[in-house]
Amino acid sequence: MFLVRSVSRTPVLRAPRRWAHSFPQLNSVTEHDLDYFRKILPPSAIITTLPPNPSPESELEPFNNDWMNKYHGKSTTVLKPRTTKEVSDIVKWCNDRHIGIVPQGGNTGLVGGSVPVKDELIISLANMSKVRSFDDVSGILVADAGCILQSLSDYLAPHNYVFPLDLGAKGSCQIGGNVSTNAGGLRLLRYGSLHGTVLGLEVVLPDGTVLDQLTSLRKDNTGYDLKQLFIGSEGTLGIVTGVSILTAPAPQATNNVMLALPKFENVLPLFKEVKRQLSEILSAFEFIDRRVYDLAIKHGQGRALDAEETEGAECFVLVETSGGNREHDEQKLNSLLESLMEADEPLINTGVLATSPAQFASLWAIREGLTEAVSKEGKPYKYDISVPLQKFQEVVDITREHLRSEGLMREGAVRHVVGYGHVGDGNLHLNVVADAYTPEVEAALEPFVYELVAKYNGSISAEHGIGVMKTHALHYSKNAVSIDWMKKIKQLFDPNGIINPGKVLP
Amino acid sequence: MFLVRSVSRTPVLRAPRRWAHSFPQLNSVTEHDLDYFRKILPPSAIITTLPPNPSPESELEPFNNDWMNKYHGKSTTVLKPRTTKEVSDIVKWCNDRHIGIVPQGGNTGLVGGSVPVKDELIISLANMSKVRSFDDVSGILVADAGCILQSLSDYLAPHNYVFPLDLGAKGSCQIGGNVSTNAGGLRLLRYGSLHGTVLGLEVVLPDGTVLDQLTSLRKDNTGYDLKQLFIGSEGTLGIVTGVSILTAPAPQATNNVMLALPKFENVLPLFKEVKRQLSEILSAFEFIDRRVYDLAIKHGQGRALDAEETEGAECFVLVETSGGNREHDEQKLNSLLESLMEADEPLINTGVLATSPAQFASLWAIREGLTEAVSKEGKPYKYDISVPLQKFQEVVDITREHLRSEGLMREGAVRHVVGYGHVGDGNLHLNVVADAYTPEVEAALEPFVYELVAKYNGSISAEHGIGVMKTHALHYSKNAVSIDWMKKIKQLFDPNGIINPGKVLP
Repeated sequence: MFLVRSVSRTPVLRAPRRWAHSFPQLNSVTEHDLDYFRKILPPSAIITTLPPNPSPESELEPFNNDWMNKYHGKSTTVLKPRTTKEVSDIVKWCNDRHIGIVPQGGNTGLVGGSVPVKDELIISLANMSKVRSFDDVSGILVADAGCILQSLSDYLAPHNYVFPLDLGAKGSCQIGGNVSTNAGGLRLLRYGSLHGTVLGLEVVLPDGTVLDQLTSLRKDNTGYDLKQLFIGSEGTLGIVTGVSILTAPAPQATNNVMLALPKFENVLPLFKEVKRQLSEILSAFEFIDRRVYDLAIKHGQGRALDAEETEGAECFVLVETSGGNREHDEQKLNSLLESLMEADEPLINTGVLATSPAQFASLWAIREGLTEAVSKEGKPYKYDISVPLQKFQEVVDITREHLRSEGLMREGAVRHVVGYGHVGDGNLHLNVVADAYTPEVEAALEPFVYELVAKYNGSISAEHGIGVMKTHALHYSKNAVSIDWMKKIKQLFDPNGIINPGKVLP
Repeated sequence: MFLVRSVSRTPVLRAPRRWAHSFPQLNSVTEHDLDYFRKILPPSAIITTLPPNPSPESELEPFNNDWMNKYHGKSTTVLKPRTTKEVSDIVKWCNDRHIGIVPQGGNTGLVGGSVPVKDELIISLANMSKVRSFDDVSGILVADAGCILQSLSDYLAPHNYVFPLDLGAKGSCQIGGNVSTNAGGLRLLRYGSLHGTVLGLEVVLPDGTVLDQLTSLRKDNTGYDLKQLFIGSEGTLGIVTGVSILTAPAPQATNNVMLALPKFENVLPLFKEVKRQLSEILSAFEFIDRRVYDLAIKHGQGRALDAEETEGAECFVLVETSGGNREHDEQKLNSLLESLMEADEPLINTGVLATSPAQFASLWAIREGLTEAVSKEGKPYKYDISVPLQKFQEVVDITREHLRSEGLMREGAVRHVVGYGHVGDGNLHLNVVADAYTPEVEAALEPFVYELVAKYNGSISAEHGIGVMKTHALHYSKNAVSIDWMKKIKQLFDPNGIINPGKVLP
């Protein structure tokens, strides 16, 4: 039975629409449970608002709420174990007692996957933050799940290696969370997905068993690769406590160039040509449509290109190279630009090549500032989708036309429909910028956008995951057989449904 | 009940040691079953020795025996479906009737995974050999499981793409089999494992359900990545019928160089230096110990290097580069060689750089001829293992010393203990060359080698898989918890135990 916490005065906790789950089979944390936790953890590893010595609610706030302040949990207790054994002991206890658990890394997710739905126990991995080993010949790193991504990058730098994953939240996200959400980020085009680079995992299963598959081997064909199940399952099958991962030799040089295109139709032939000429040094190919470029400049994100460079441009592409030899890379990039400009029917109008670190940063600032620009312009409805590259512009245009036909492309409703994203990965960020979040706009967008994505056999969540935000929409990207088997897997690993309840599965 | 086939006169089928499995719960194929198969398949898709119109036994031989002629099945019937629907119908029937099934691709495996243990029905994927789609912008290829690897490479060549997998058996192995065995091969160092490059799979599950996860998306974080379970599970969880995979832009230039090293201790610092200088164009780093090099030359595998080039060399390393610009790649390679030769304490004695396609092929001929040279020299016990790079030579030397201490390093017993392999992947091929396969040598080698590998937390099967050959040794590389969970997964997907019985799990 779900016990209403004694400190609550309101008989019913009203959760926002879409995640009004309830777990009648789960119990709340009680003082009796805390007695046990105090036996296995030091006082500093326990934060609780329960008697007899309650911490102030404020101490739990950063754990109960996500960074966007969009998802809100009501957990009474956060535990911060320091070892895998401690995690195991806690989980075993909770499984026996049917207490829901939310594993939490840096809590930087965008879909509410790391925040309690009700008052589940939060297990923060923050105190497990040691590098366990690094082999500077093979480049294989083994680390606690709670290591912050930036700290691992810093650790690798003097060894001349880079982490095969990079993303905006690197200053606070944790590697265990990255693995659990199969984070994509900025280096995917170059280094591939975590399914390829993660070599081993240590996972505490929902019954408290430690599944130790923390090998440091690039090749190991001895039976089922079970660790893969935990990559991207958003902590619903177990808690990742350790990660073994293949890091990459650090590039010696990086360059970038912003290309202005007269029309979207040129993006794909351009991508082919760039891949052909830059080959192994291509590390990013980012699409920016004209409308969102203008928003970025309007809101001071990056330095505007000269008027003559942007005149007549329908969209832009930011190309980045990373390689082992600066001179060679620059030659390849220059030769690419020459051939593009000298073509009989040029695919680009102009290209702006960064010739200094400051210019390099300035070009990236435009791309990285798009999210902020959109937020400054209005209230964005954000869709992180995968569709075939050919359909990038179509998805944006069709969505805009649909809103127009609904009479919503007007002041007081929707201002802009824009697109940008990782062409190289097939990942489009569709942004609908409204004056306010209204049921009217939302009803026009959903399920319209999801149905559009499904029509192209795309993904309704390219990299952000499902969390609690999109469980209702999972069926647009996964067929009934797949969802059925996901449920069977969940049932097999977590028959009591204690681990991250309400997430991923509808 | 297991029915002894009526054509058999021997009451007991004697299987070789180690795979004397029996499946009392499974039934043999009967004429009644064939009646059904004839309803859904054309006559050309059925080969059977059962009445009323039996094919000659010889027609089943290529399916019942592996290419080494080491594993022998007694199947009466091979079906060659042309569509996923046909595979599904067959599997559903067999599941209802409790008939064992062996999915078979090119039957090029090394561990008996694609040959029946008794008289299971063989489903050959050979008739499913169409490319379903190819997108020459994204490089994503979708193909039937029965496509032969070489034919896919040939298909991609005019599009300027390469398959991210290459291996010796490419002329007959099939992509479905490659995926099911998580084949590694020669390009792993460059393009990573199939867990990273396979984007989607279509799988017929043991109850006949079609699990369609055949997406062509690089990024798709919508729930559990179930397809990963079928990569490397050797056909024991379902039959892969379709594969979606990311191919790579074709390199414009390849180069290689054979480096002679005075001592093994130099291999690792050399690997680090080569990785640093060649960075993204390094595509192979192959270790060859002196003894096996000498065997290769003795047996005419590749052209011998000059005496002065090999004098004092304890081992060799073959380095290959693949890149987008011949001139740049050659500059990088030349500059590497110069820096290696001019060092105060050179890591290498000499380096032989291929300057023509013929020389390029000649250097690779040495490396690729090692397997054949070893077979010509005697009877090889072959171990395909992963161990930390630092331990490559140690594993070879310790094994030799162990055999010496057992009095087996002598004429009439063991002639050579040699090692070679993919340093870049941590994958060592340990070869013990004996005069004959004898119980004495085998007893000295096993479990000795497996225990040695386990001591280094290595893998007893880096790329060949488990099949029927190594089920008894699985526990040296997988702990009890892992094996227990593998069994639970198998039970979940295949409760009747019909798919590839006797393989992978002990």
